[in-house]
Amino acid sequence: MSSGGPDFERMWAELAPVGRSARSGGYFRQPWTAAETELRGWFAEQARDRGLVLDEDPFGNLVAWWRPADADPARPAVLTGSHLDSVLDGGAYDGPLGVASAFCAVDLLRERGIRARRPLAIAAFAEEEGSRFGRACLGSRLAAGAAAWTDVRDLTDRDGVRLGDLLPGGPAEPWLAGIGCYLELHVEQGRALVDHDAPIGVAAGIWPHGRWRFDLQGRADHAGTTRMEDRADPMLTYAMTALAANKQARLAGQRATFGRVEVAPNGTNAVPGRVRAWLDARADSADELAAMVAAIETQARARADRDGTRVEVTAESVSDAVAFDEPLARRVVGLVAGEDPGTARRIPVLPTQAGHDAGILQAAGIPSAMLFVRNPTGVSHAPEEFAPMADCLAGVEALADTLAGLLQ
Amino acid sequence: MSSGGPDFERMWAELAPVGRSARSGGYFRQPWTAAETELRGWFAEQARDRGLVLDEDPFGNLVAWWRPADADPARPAVLTGSHLDSVLDGGAYDGPLGVASAFCAVDLLRERGIRARRPLAIAAFAEEEGSRFGRACLGSRLAAGAAAWTDVRDLTDRDGVRLGDLLPGGPAEPWLAGIGCYLELHVEQGRALVDHDAPIGVAAGIWPHGRWRFDLQGRADHAGTTRMEDRADPMLTYAMTALAANKQARLAGQRATFGRVEVAPNGTNAVPGRVRAWLDARADSADELAAMVAAIETQARARADRDGTRVEVTAESVSDAVAFDEPLARRVVGLVAGEDPGTARRIPVLPTQAGHDAGILQAAGIPSAMLFVRNPTGVSHAPEEFAPMADCLAGVEALADTLAGLLQ
Repeated sequence: MSSGGPDFERMWAELAPVGRSARSGGYFRQPWTAAETELRGWFAEQARDRGLVLDEDPFGNLVAWWRPADADPARPAVLTGSHLDSVLDGGAYDGPLGVASAFCAVDLLRERGIRARRPLAIAAFAEEEGSRFGRACLGSRLAAGAAAWTDVRDLTDRDGVRLGDLLPGGPAEPWLAGIGCYLELHVEQGRALVDHDAPIGVAAGIWPHGRWRFDLQGRADHAGTTRMEDRADPMLTYAMTALAANKQARLAGQRATFGRVEVAPNGTNAVPGRVRAWLDARADSADELAAMVAAIETQARARADRDGTRVEVTAESVSDAVAFDEPLARRVVGLVAGEDPGTARRIPVLPTQAGHDAGILQAAGIPSAMLFVRNPTGVSHAPEEFAPMADCLAGVEALADTLAGLLQ
Repeated sequence: MSSGGPDFERMWAELAPVGRSARSGGYFRQPWTAAETELRGWFAEQARDRGLVLDEDPFGNLVAWWRPADADPARPAVLTGSHLDSVLDGGAYDGPLGVASAFCAVDLLRERGIRARRPLAIAAFAEEEGSRFGRACLGSRLAAGAAAWTDVRDLTDRDGVRLGDLLPGGPAEPWLAGIGCYLELHVEQGRALVDHDAPIGVAAGIWPHGRWRFDLQGRADHAGTTRMEDRADPMLTYAMTALAANKQARLAGQRATFGRVEVAPNGTNAVPGRVRAWLDARADSADELAAMVAAIETQARARADRDGTRVEVTAESVSDAVAFDEPLARRVVGLVAGEDPGTARRIPVLPTQAGHDAGILQAAGIPSAMLFVRNPTGVSHAPEEFAPMADCLAGVEALADTLAGLLQ
């Protein structure tokens, strides 16, 4: 294939400046901010340019429908896409790569004269990263009925803005009921494909993972005049808990991170009164995950007893293990390989530690699959996140090849 | 004395709501914010009501001058007062107690018919807490020439507002050259007066103390997909450093606190790229202080080597030990005791670990003294900071008694 390349490169160049920090080079595309709203406009434009019909559900998820004349509207549609939002100071690829590739894949299918027998839909799911309201995959959870609107509408962002004031919400319009399968292309967030020397891989499943909020309550005091032995300093409890999380994860061969912390009053000359911190933990089984989080909590409580502080732990979101639909994964591998068994054997099928909308849909009973595009450094959720253009174009080809098969 | 009481109580009630957080009950009176500007207006009103002449120097320090007919304008003035700003979520007493008491003391002197032979000035020094621009005692340092305007005008607050855009600055108007001595009344920030069963104490000196900024640089990464052994996580370096600071201070019987921390990007599912944290350290000698800070830095660097992170330590402000003028302190004790040796022996003379504008002025060669008012819990820099009204009124009396003597 020769075409597709320049189109993708042009689309990618259009997206590059949106929400980019001049200081870090990273992206701030939090849902319903100016930057992300611009991306939504871009999505609508892409749909319009291709004659696709744009829908937005009450949870902010965008869907562009391709219903070719040959497609049987009664048959379940094939869904592809990803998300447009980023973490704070994130990379360019995590999310938008899957959305831009989906539009380019439609172009390729049309250029190739593929006759689609089923409708195709391209989705941009809202708040996938949970960077604004703290719930990862919020849009897909709501659309799939895995989260209830009444449970999340009162969530507030860091500035106190309420989710329910941004979105209509309400009962879910069951548009996902018309979806037969979901295929999400995503930049790899590790270096497994580098080790396999392969530009494209297929996901096997997602580790169980979750977020736990640690509220550590002490007593604010003067940093100069309060004797060390008279303090109840929650910063010390936090510090020990962060180290404990790292140690437990290392020992167990799993993942545990404290990446976000809020201190009150956060003044140089004041012993803090309160520290709130979030644990991100992931493991290769639900039992391992529960055991690791319990061990971290135990160590936090032991240190709190010593510091005279109080610990409260709240599970904000916990996702079970997801095994992607095996027949679909095999079919994707076959289609990417052009049904050549030798080529198919060289396409890695990998687990991932990152949550994705595809995991939510799979758990909700929609057969789902993921294509990963090689990431030379493995860095993600950071300004340095990168995938070479050649591998991105290979991803567009692989997505088009797969969709061509699935749409029959 | 019977009068003065109701006046002080009324003034205190006027101040109570200004900048008070309904949530915590603490105060947010950062310099040049709405709340602190309201306090500046209150200061101007107090001066006007008493026929005092209001000055503001180019650094935001307010001075109200009392120049009675009997006072010799050629003699150096007596300065009293304190500051109006608070730490973030601070208490009501730290600062405003000394300013309100000063105005009430003038009322008492007038009621008593005291003939002042020297001018009296009441100061409200700006940004004493350093809670906005990070430099404690900023106003008094600038007025005393202990800090240069050109070195601080480019300081920015947390929102990027530049000090030089808020203040005229420029060369110091040398109004402090006309001051013969400074007397600052302040709530005690510990429990020594409780132990001595005394409502009022006098300061002996201030421990050497300072603020050091720790910049810890790592590499932002995905919290799920990045293996523990592939990370360069500055949160771990920070956590170990905070624990090391606490341990070093305990071992040495000194004080070390990490009360403020800023994390980037501060996202739940991202390994941080950068942690910036501030060490507040104080010790009973400059050598002890330097040794303690060096030990903390050594431990931070050792941990950074392990974490693959980088450490940069910047001393933001370091204050040497201050010994208050001994003859002045003896005179203050005598005047508070009504020159009764038995009473004088029961007035504690105490060191303090807290920095004060009085320390800056003493170091600049202006004989300075401090009166402390008992604090039953010792809590300060926190919403719970408190001094009983009876002790506050005793403070006003002690201040008036002392000023009556110093003004002769």
